[in-house]
Amino acid sequence: MTGPTLSEPAAAETGTALDRYRLLIDLEDRPGIVESVAGFLGRRGGNILDLDSHSTGEPPRFYMRAEFGVAAGSLDEEEFKREFAREIAPDLGVDCWELWPVARRKRVCVLVSKHGHCLTELLTRWHQGELPCDIDLVVSNHPDMATEAERFGVEYLHVPVEKGHKPEAEAKILERIGGGRYDLHVLARYMQILSPEFLAGAGAPIINIHHSLLPAFIGANPYSRARDRGVKIIGATAHYVTEDLDAGPIIEQDIVRVTHRLGVDEMVQAGRDIERTVLSRAVRWHLEDRVAVHGNSSLVFA
Amino acid sequence: MTGPTLSEPAAAETGTALDRYRLLIDLEDRPGIVESVAGFLGRRGGNILDLDSHSTGEPPRFYMRAEFGVAAGSLDEEEFKREFAREIAPDLGVDCWELWPVARRKRVCVLVSKHGHCLTELLTRWHQGELPCDIDLVVSNHPDMATEAERFGVEYLHVPVEKGHKPEAEAKILERIGGGRYDLHVLARYMQILSPEFLAGAGAPIINIHHSLLPAFIGANPYSRARDRGVKIIGATAHYVTEDLDAGPIIEQDIVRVTHRLGVDEMVQAGRDIERTVLSRAVRWHLEDRVAVHGNSSLVFA
Amino acid sequence: MTGPTLSEPAAAETGTALDRYRLLIDLEDRPGIVESVAGFLGRRGGNILDLDSHSTGEPPRFYMRAEFGVAAGSLDEEEFKREFAREIAPDLGVDCWELWPVARRKRVCVLVSKHGHCLTELLTRWHQGELPCDIDLVVSNHPDMATEAERFGVEYLHVPVEKGHKPEAEAKILERIGGGRYDLHVLARYMQILSPEFLAGAGAPIINIHHSLLPAFIGANPYSRARDRGVKIIGATAHYVTEDLDAGPIIEQDIVRVTHRLGVDEMVQAGRDIERTVLSRAVRWHLEDRVAVHGNSSLVFA
Amino acid sequence: MTGPTLSEPAAAETGTALDRYRLLIDLEDRPGIVESVAGFLGRRGGNILDLDSHSTGEPPRFYMRAEFGVAAGSLDEEEFKREFAREIAPDLGVDCWELWPVARRKRVCVLVSKHGHCLTELLTRWHQGELPCDIDLVVSNHPDMATEAERFGVEYLHVPVEKGHKPEAEAKILERIGGGRYDLHVLARYMQILSPEFLAGAGAPIINIHHSLLPAFIGANPYSRARDRGVKIIGATAHYVTEDLDAGPIIEQDIVRVTHRLGVDEMVQAGRDIERTVLSRAVRWHLEDRVAVHGNSSLVFA
Repeated sequence: MTGPTLSEPAAAETGTALDRYRLLIDLEDRPGIVESVAGFLGRRGGNILDLDSHSTGEPPRFYMRAEFGVAAGSLDEEEFKREFAREIAPDLGVDCWELWPVARRKRVCVLVSKHGHCLTELLTRWHQGELPCDIDLVVSNHPDMATEAERFGVEYLHVPVEKGHKPEAEAKILERIGGGRYDLHVLARYMQILSPEFLAGAGAPIINIHHSLLPAFIGANPYSRARDRGVKIIGATAHYVTEDLDAGPIIEQDIVRVTHRLGVDEMVQAGRDIERTVLSRAVRWHLEDRVAVHGNSSLVFA
Repeated sequence: MTGPTLSEPAAAETGTALDRYRLLIDLEDRPGIVESVAGFLGRRGGNILDLDSHSTGEPPRFYMRAEFGVAAGSLDEEEFKREFAREIAPDLGVDCWELWPVARRKRVCVLVSKHGHCLTELLTRWHQGELPCDIDLVVSNHPDMATEAERFGVEYLHVPVEKGHKPEAEAKILERIGGGRYDLHVLARYMQILSPEFLAGAGAPIINIHHSLLPAFIGANPYSRARDRGVKIIGATAHYVTEDLDAGPIIEQDIVRVTHRLGVDEMVQAGRDIERTVLSRAVRWHLEDRVAVHGNSSLVFA
Repeated sequence: MTGPTLSEPAAAETGTALDRYRLLIDLEDRPGIVESVAGFLGRRGGNILDLDSHSTGEPPRFYMRAEFGVAAGSLDEEEFKREFAREIAPDLGVDCWELWPVARRKRVCVLVSKHGHCLTELLTRWHQGELPCDIDLVVSNHPDMATEAERFGVEYLHVPVEKGHKPEAEAKILERIGGGRYDLHVLARYMQILSPEFLAGAGAPIINIHHSLLPAFIGANPYSRARDRGVKIIGATAHYVTEDLDAGPIIEQDIVRVTHRLGVDEMVQAGRDIERTVLSRAVRWHLEDRVAVHGNSSLVFA
Repeated sequence: MTGPTLSEPAAAETGTALDRYRLLIDLEDRPGIVESVAGFLGRRGGNILDLDSHSTGEPPRFYMRAEFGVAAGSLDEEEFKREFAREIAPDLGVDCWELWPVARRKRVCVLVSKHGHCLTELLTRWHQGELPCDIDLVVSNHPDMATEAERFGVEYLHVPVEKGHKPEAEAKILERIGGGRYDLHVLARYMQILSPEFLAGAGAPIINIHHSLLPAFIGANPYSRARDRGVKIIGATAHYVTEDLDAGPIIEQDIVRVTHRLGVDEMVQAGRDIERTVLSRAVRWHLEDRVAVHGNSSLVFA
């Protein structure tokens, strides 16, 4: 099922028939990058509408996100990639780049366990046209959220994870979602640690929401631990999943103030609001190609 | 030296000659507390102007902060305390209570090492009448901030802490500030771990500012570690000092968002702003008797 | 239809069978109020669990919110009210007070026009047990949100407002929701100005969400006007509806930062998030009897 | 008097001897801008370290801020400007551009009336090396802040503004600070409306701090009006001064939450903190050439 499109405002404003693309590049920093790339685009009739770049410190690496427009129908994607690979990449040592048409919606699969607030938030935003993607599958190790997925007309795949049989469950999930069938997987409070094999087979980035302001309260029950510690601020963290638990590159974090008046249940509820906000933001940024990974951290061109 | 007074607005507004007091109580929760205390105050002509209370969960304990007014000159503090101890305390099992006249300024001593931004913030606010206290001494293990203290007309006590001679240094400081000579000590980036003996001898609460959002990044160099971890939010924590390093009851925390564009130096600078804000707020709340300690956490009636 | 109950944490924690009530009082400020009320409660076996109060300036008025517990089944509501009216009210000049059992869910009716994000937020939170109320009706001047109400099993009453026939439409709505059939009406982006007659007949408070940080951008199209003015912060305001457009007592406001990168459409989207957050918070506070109106402003005991 | 330099982190990190420059451009949007400019820089050995750009909607205009490095001593500023004017400007129709060496500190003059908190904040930050500029003069229509300026070793020019003699006062001030003697004037709570003649003669941008979240509470006494209206959020606005009072392009805004507990005096105090924060941020951004004016709004490349 495909949600409605939220047209990008700039496109609406220009009033001309433009195809818009995003070009993302990262490479070892050296002089002349911007000139080369801008020249390459210019020779194909591309006009840069938005350009953001950053040169990191040690090691020096250059990241660039350009959004450009060309006359509608004038860009042949395969040819562009071939020529970029020949003309630009070797010269600059670009080993990592991507071209993405703004109009192409990413395919997203959501995984959830029993707590549905993040799932509902994603499905609601998608349904209201606020997340430019296609969501056609929710995977869960529990049956609880089946009716919620159904409410939005999305298929629900229930794969129980029996004790001692996790590899089989993971294999079953991968069979359905792995190998590049999706552009993004979102763990919307999916409470299972994923094996290295699963990560390797997923074939797409995985975003997780952790219910604390990492690196504080890594692991289980962050809210009770936060309350025991008497913190005045709690938060949530959206990050890419890596083999190290709760340690992958952080995409977004946000917080909410808490007081002595809140019991654990109320802190959990306050935390839920932050979790769904932070996860939505991280997913949207990823969908708009705004996130670049640099070592174990991220750059967000937002 | 005594800073100018910032008159409390409510007092100014009422227009009548009132003496204002704060009464703080905490006790094992049981029925009838508010009635007893309100009755006690009422019989002495006290009118409750502001009352805040909270009943904690496990263990059940009741905390109350009342600000009340009496006709100017009508309340004899010693007599009030004697009668409260006789009439109310035993009956309710109140083992912890305090009466404080709003007009009595707390005596504060500030300790600092080399980074002066928190010290300057406190002195500036005090100088502008925003901190209702008396500050007449800055203690430091370094000479660097002497001129800063001087700019505000405050004495500077330089007590170097030589390697292996910390006990002597602590003794020398205690001689000057210990044993209840001050109502509050503030560690405004004083980078020395204090011994249990020092804490015992200080005779007053000690507030410290830690440059991270505890419990994240306990210990040294929180900002570089935050940058290495790629966090999107950094913060600062003001807490009472206990024997456990960076683990005492938290009074206040606040945060600032950071992006990939900030180098470590810039994160340090962004952090400095939060440190001084958080420390000022915690000190002000303490001065206004708004903070109650419950186990290892705090209640802030603000 | 009745949503699931979100049990109040403190009740869960105490572990004893208590009935909880909230008592709200406001009266001309005078000595002895707290004592009288606490005594009255104490004589009925009530134990104050949470008490918040405030004494305003000019004119001096005292507001108090007490949450108290009594042994389950021991309090006869009608008798309590009768006795309070006899013993306390005349003595103190209390002209405005309310007793509300925590367990009694308020009946809420939501009105909406075409923009469904606030409606969906309220229904989702209610459905997830985060809003302690009963919602059984959505009223609209447009048919657009009918399926949304249906998704949550809530009846949808479509009352078109034809040009020149507003009085008839209002009468038709009032027939169904007026005269105290509901405890609260929520305008979740209901884009019709209500007549004084409607307000009089509604028989319950009405909360509206305005999509600007009032008093900035009163009236229509606040987001475009905000963008034209080049503001760096936009916000939303939840307020009680009075006869003056956008001028009733404010309950809650919140903001989001915007930058030059956002077009009007994106500002609208950022604003939607704030609208739904602010409205939910205001409604929840109202449901928990935390809001007191003082002239044209409000006190929020939260 | 010249404050200490806060070295820019990136410069420190690269470890090579680079001169850093900022190039700011704005022009009617058209294809090829980035390519042309990047090429121009590249031919002079310039390496773009940070590039931010934005293409506005109606009318379409392109803004670019590039920070680039060249081998130390290799760039002749006058020659660069001559060549840019010849090679790039006419071709692209660039009518507005600026080259600024990162190492060149802007000269700043601060104007103040009686409220010193913003002045103190600016002087403190400048003194601590957080504002990369030179401040050698404070101008005031009152004598009150003379000792404050003195504390920081800065000259104080007292020019009383007598009723009916404002033109003379303005002329006297202009004689000292006008005609480009300064790169920036900061109104740090200077409570005089400036005449068009003064603005014309100032010869440099003027930043003002307004103590409300514009456009709410334009004009006098914003805090009491905010309290009367019962708002839950107050704020401050830093903007460039134009002939329309409180209506120039906004650079930065920020807010603080307020509650019913705050009297007007306390709201004023809470507001002071926001005023000094917002003004400092706006001044720093201006000093780092991060602000571009587009019609009556601003773009901030931060």
